[in-house]
Amino acid sequence: MSIAPGTAVEALDTPVLLVDGDALARNIARIKDLARHAGIAYRPHAKTHKSPLIAAMQIDAGAVGICCAKLAEAEVMAAAGIDDILITTEVVGAAKIARLMAACRLARIRVVVDDEKNISELAEAARAAGIRLDVLVDVDVGMARTGVATAADAARLANIIARAQSLRFNGLQGYHGGLQMMAAVDERADQVGLAMDRLEAAAELVRSERLEIETLTGGGTGTSVVDLAAGRLNELQPGSYVFMDASYSAIEWRDGAPPPFENALTLMATVVSRPAPEIATVDIGYKAASMDSGPIRPIDLPGAAFTFMGDEHGRLTFENRLCPLAVGDKVHFIPSHCDTTINLYDRYVVTSAGTVTAIWDIAARGMVQ
Amino acid sequence: MSIAPGTAVEALDTPVLLVDGDALARNIARIKDLARHAGIAYRPHAKTHKSPLIAAMQIDAGAVGICCAKLAEAEVMAAAGIDDILITTEVVGAAKIARLMAACRLARIRVVVDDEKNISELAEAARAAGIRLDVLVDVDVGMARTGVATAADAARLANIIARAQSLRFNGLQGYHGGLQMMAAVDERADQVGLAMDRLEAAAELVRSERLEIETLTGGGTGTSVVDLAAGRLNELQPGSYVFMDASYSAIEWRDGAPPPFENALTLMATVVSRPAPEIATVDIGYKAASMDSGPIRPIDLPGAAFTFMGDEHGRLTFENRLCPLAVGDKVHFIPSHCDTTINLYDRYVVTSAGTVTAIWDIAARGMVQ
Repeated sequence: MSIAPGTAVEALDTPVLLVDGDALARNIARIKDLARHAGIAYRPHAKTHKSPLIAAMQIDAGAVGICCAKLAEAEVMAAAGIDDILITTEVVGAAKIARLMAACRLARIRVVVDDEKNISELAEAARAAGIRLDVLVDVDVGMARTGVATAADAARLANIIARAQSLRFNGLQGYHGGLQMMAAVDERADQVGLAMDRLEAAAELVRSERLEIETLTGGGTGTSVVDLAAGRLNELQPGSYVFMDASYSAIEWRDGAPPPFENALTLMATVVSRPAPEIATVDIGYKAASMDSGPIRPIDLPGAAFTFMGDEHGRLTFENRLCPLAVGDKVHFIPSHCDTTINLYDRYVVTSAGTVTAIWDIAARGMVQ
Repeated sequence: MSIAPGTAVEALDTPVLLVDGDALARNIARIKDLARHAGIAYRPHAKTHKSPLIAAMQIDAGAVGICCAKLAEAEVMAAAGIDDILITTEVVGAAKIARLMAACRLARIRVVVDDEKNISELAEAARAAGIRLDVLVDVDVGMARTGVATAADAARLANIIARAQSLRFNGLQGYHGGLQMMAAVDERADQVGLAMDRLEAAAELVRSERLEIETLTGGGTGTSVVDLAAGRLNELQPGSYVFMDASYSAIEWRDGAPPPFENALTLMATVVSRPAPEIATVDIGYKAASMDSGPIRPIDLPGAAFTFMGDEHGRLTFENRLCPLAVGDKVHFIPSHCDTTINLYDRYVVTSAGTVTAIWDIAARGMVQ
């Protein structure tokens, strides 16, 4: 179904994923100002938006490049002309490494490693492809998800990379996803301090072995307020700032205030049933909004709470009052988690002041390999 | 990335959604036998598999047609030649009703209603399109999600439909999603009995007003053991039986035994990191497996438990022993919820005895409108 620019948002069919293009532009400008003021480079994580078009907007605004979580995302970005990409998760196995070599013909792509055999395979493939691949050592800074566990392991792998003629040692990555959503900024800052101590210990050992660390990367939207002030990383990886969501909007940025980014991403639903006086059923369920971070948040519906009711339905319950909605009414929500909600849709409907301005493909949706 | 038939499953890149074609065929045959023995028609729910090809296999095996949850799914199925479809959720709003009329040129499509204004809009659109649309009244049998709340409302709407020249009253739907997963079959049977009492009360009132009920439809994979024995519905809507998942495999079918359907759907992942002696990190997170029904279940890894670790990663923790896996190893999982996991992928890789036999598009993936 094609949608013409100029269409009123309320006339759109639902469920639909909406982007406020003006709020998006302000978020993109705001991170630029914050990073410039701090004198720290930033490389937005494209795993959030999955759109080469938004990636290009971020780079135009001053980002040094983008991050991708998966090789398949990087392939989409590189094919669309994004030319500086860091893949922030390990690229493992012969099939993926062969694809990586092909993608490296289109863009400068850096990878992270935490395993010696993986380094050997990358080195051999890069040698055969006649390229020199930039490699960072991924350091576990407390999450026990990926990354080497000790500074000694980091230094050992850095040396192996540095000795491989087809590889170039580029630096260290230390990312802790578990800290991003800590509500209180003081507690978050304490924990980020501990994580950065671990990264710094690895960095010091690497430097003591006369290897240069060009890039020290990590951080996310939630920790960026701390990372920008601390200056311990020289490249940040914020992703969600571009859209925000109900989870990130609920954390403290500074002095009790929320983050300085706007909710640019919303869902519009239709009331499809009114099964009881205090209840409206809408056409958003698990297939139209992710629930890994809890319920979506109704906009401009005081007293209404959302509950998922299966794959296709959600329930709005109005506390202590009758539901004011009728079958056919449109309602708006803020997703609880932007990345995974976006992963359910093939396109953004971009709006300005309640009118459609553009349709953007979510070109890297579902690119999990 | 094209995949050639004959490729060994273990050589596939990951994450990948695998279908055991032989188990799928046995599941399709098994429901046929069960329904034939009970003398009850069945109309499998295509919202599970989202594949016209599998829908055609089900119809070839004796299904009277298919169900779809959303109009957009029905459009995909109708365009692919599936010619008898029941849309089990209300089709609301002018845009959707216009699309419904277009789809009705390709297939016999029935819809359910629970709202008088919606009936008027359907009648007017059908009249303008010059078609006669079959309509069922959706009866709330205890879930308070969709459907009319009382027998009187059901009879009232049935009469409105019957009086509209462009509509044909076809019967009643009574579906209770909350009963499908009740573990103990006796308790499930009791609750199904109460739900069917509500549907039967509506049906009796409708019949007393001299309206014929051709179709009395409802049920799902979990309640089908009860529905088949009770014979109170004349058409069943099982969906998940075709693949099963960790949730449905855990319920009791009869005498303590699990349902007589096989797990035909699995996920294959790769170990991408070994951050601690008892832990392996795999490349499946929220973007590659749904979590609305809990963690995915490792296959053939005794003592291993899976935890989601963000959008791209999952953790396998081995209790009381060292993790036996190395970086690069492939591991297999049963999804916790088939419908929503399938909704994350664009294709099935179909296998037989560990070898790829076909690639099937998940043509109705993401068709939420």
